[in-house]
Amino acid sequence: MSELRPLIFITNDDGISSKGIRSLYEAVKGFGEIVLIAPDSAQSGMGHAITINHPLRLEYSYLFDCESFACTGTPVDCVKLGVYEVMHKKPDLILSGINHGANVATNVLYSGTMSAAVEGAMEGIPSIGFSLCSFDSDADFELAIEVTRSVVKKVLLEKMPIGVCLNVNIPDIHKSDFKGIKICKQANAYWDDRFDKRKDQFDRTYYWLTGDFVDQDQSSDTDVYWIDKGYATIVPTQYDLTAYAALEELENWNL
Amino acid sequence: MSELRPLIFITNDDGISSKGIRSLYEAVKGFGEIVLIAPDSAQSGMGHAITINHPLRLEYSYLFDCESFACTGTPVDCVKLGVYEVMHKKPDLILSGINHGANVATNVLYSGTMSAAVEGAMEGIPSIGFSLCSFDSDADFELAIEVTRSVVKKVLLEKMPIGVCLNVNIPDIHKSDFKGIKICKQANAYWDDRFDKRKDQFDRTYYWLTGDFVDQDQSSDTDVYWIDKGYATIVPTQYDLTAYAALEELENWNL
Repeated sequence: MSELRPLIFITNDDGISSKGIRSLYEAVKGFGEIVLIAPDSAQSGMGHAITINHPLRLEYSYLFDCESFACTGTPVDCVKLGVYEVMHKKPDLILSGINHGANVATNVLYSGTMSAAVEGAMEGIPSIGFSLCSFDSDADFELAIEVTRSVVKKVLLEKMPIGVCLNVNIPDIHKSDFKGIKICKQANAYWDDRFDKRKDQFDRTYYWLTGDFVDQDQSSDTDVYWIDKGYATIVPTQYDLTAYAALEELENWNL
Repeated sequence: MSELRPLIFITNDDGISSKGIRSLYEAVKGFGEIVLIAPDSAQSGMGHAITINHPLRLEYSYLFDCESFACTGTPVDCVKLGVYEVMHKKPDLILSGINHGANVATNVLYSGTMSAAVEGAMEGIPSIGFSLCSFDSDADFELAIEVTRSVVKKVLLEKMPIGVCLNVNIPDIHKSDFKGIKICKQANAYWDDRFDKRKDQFDRTYYWLTGDFVDQDQSSDTDVYWIDKGYATIVPTQYDLTAYAALEELENWNL
């Protein structure tokens, strides 16, 4: 860490008023100086979106006992505004969450929570996304807070691998049923999507995205597998999307 | 291909009226049956965002000689609506673009164009994102159309590697200066961001995201490197973000 008292940046995608970001703040407020910027409304499913066609605004928030702002943008916007406009330097740690709902498997790509952490990794800042496997806005974060504390303590001691952030998911179970923490890979799952087709007050059609989560991964070392068994999971997550294993095959196409 | 005349789905992130998607349509309209769904307005920088907090709408478009719709959502929404609501089956090929502007290096994560292709790969559909390295809305797509045709022809013949889509970038040069196509990796670059801070008519502060693209990659087999030398580049791109190389290191943390 660059200082005795680390500078910790907090964001999320459920918005500044959510129980999850309050739980994250409570979990780590003793660990360093905190700066918090979070979306002013729910930004779930925003992935790595950035705001370039509309201006961004920051409003000072009195919800936390630290420098904190509500932002009109996405979680990735919050990270960029935090680093380049509010802190004017890289924090020692970026924490995102605690998300209301799992961010396992391929959901990491849709997740604003995890995209904030991925953005942190791209900026060379140790970054962690936390998610509780419950979508309940009043979920019980007791176990999640304990896991968050132990992971953050460890990351403040260890050196994060280069180009990597951590995707931490915590099962929605009571502390007494908790089995421990597993390091594992992202499950190969997908959404079998459907659209709920409705008519508005002018008889015009509109759609709501819905669907079923399908885990097609047969292996036993995935986040979905271990969460189901009562473990919290940590997937080291990278921003290099190059499919190195496919390079040779494509070379043989002789394009 | 599942049919003699392949079913090809087209989308983009610059919107249905852009020259880029018109160029893509013209490039491949002879290759199969086309269905086209594109955002009704610019969705650049939307990454893998999906729309879950607002309803989605589709409006039939008369801009193309094929079944085509303008969509109120993101590029990934367009793919999901295409597969699950309009076509009711997986197309043989998803093509996204041709983007106005490069999608090299880590920009793939911010790119709506590439996220549509990544979404296709997640659904098990051969998918390609195309980008011309010019942000000009009236850019010259002549070379891009030629490269698009040759890549699409090849993909219709070959089998795409599993879990992978293609990220194709075409340099903004005249055909006579074009050197060929390189298969390579995504450069390790980042944005040195800045915010243009302004005052609105009520003297309230707002921000525009801006910045400089910084290529910190020293290796000579990256997309940025080859584009600069007059080549089009193809990076096989995956949606598994697990940093496998970091798994062992994290195990040693003994969490």
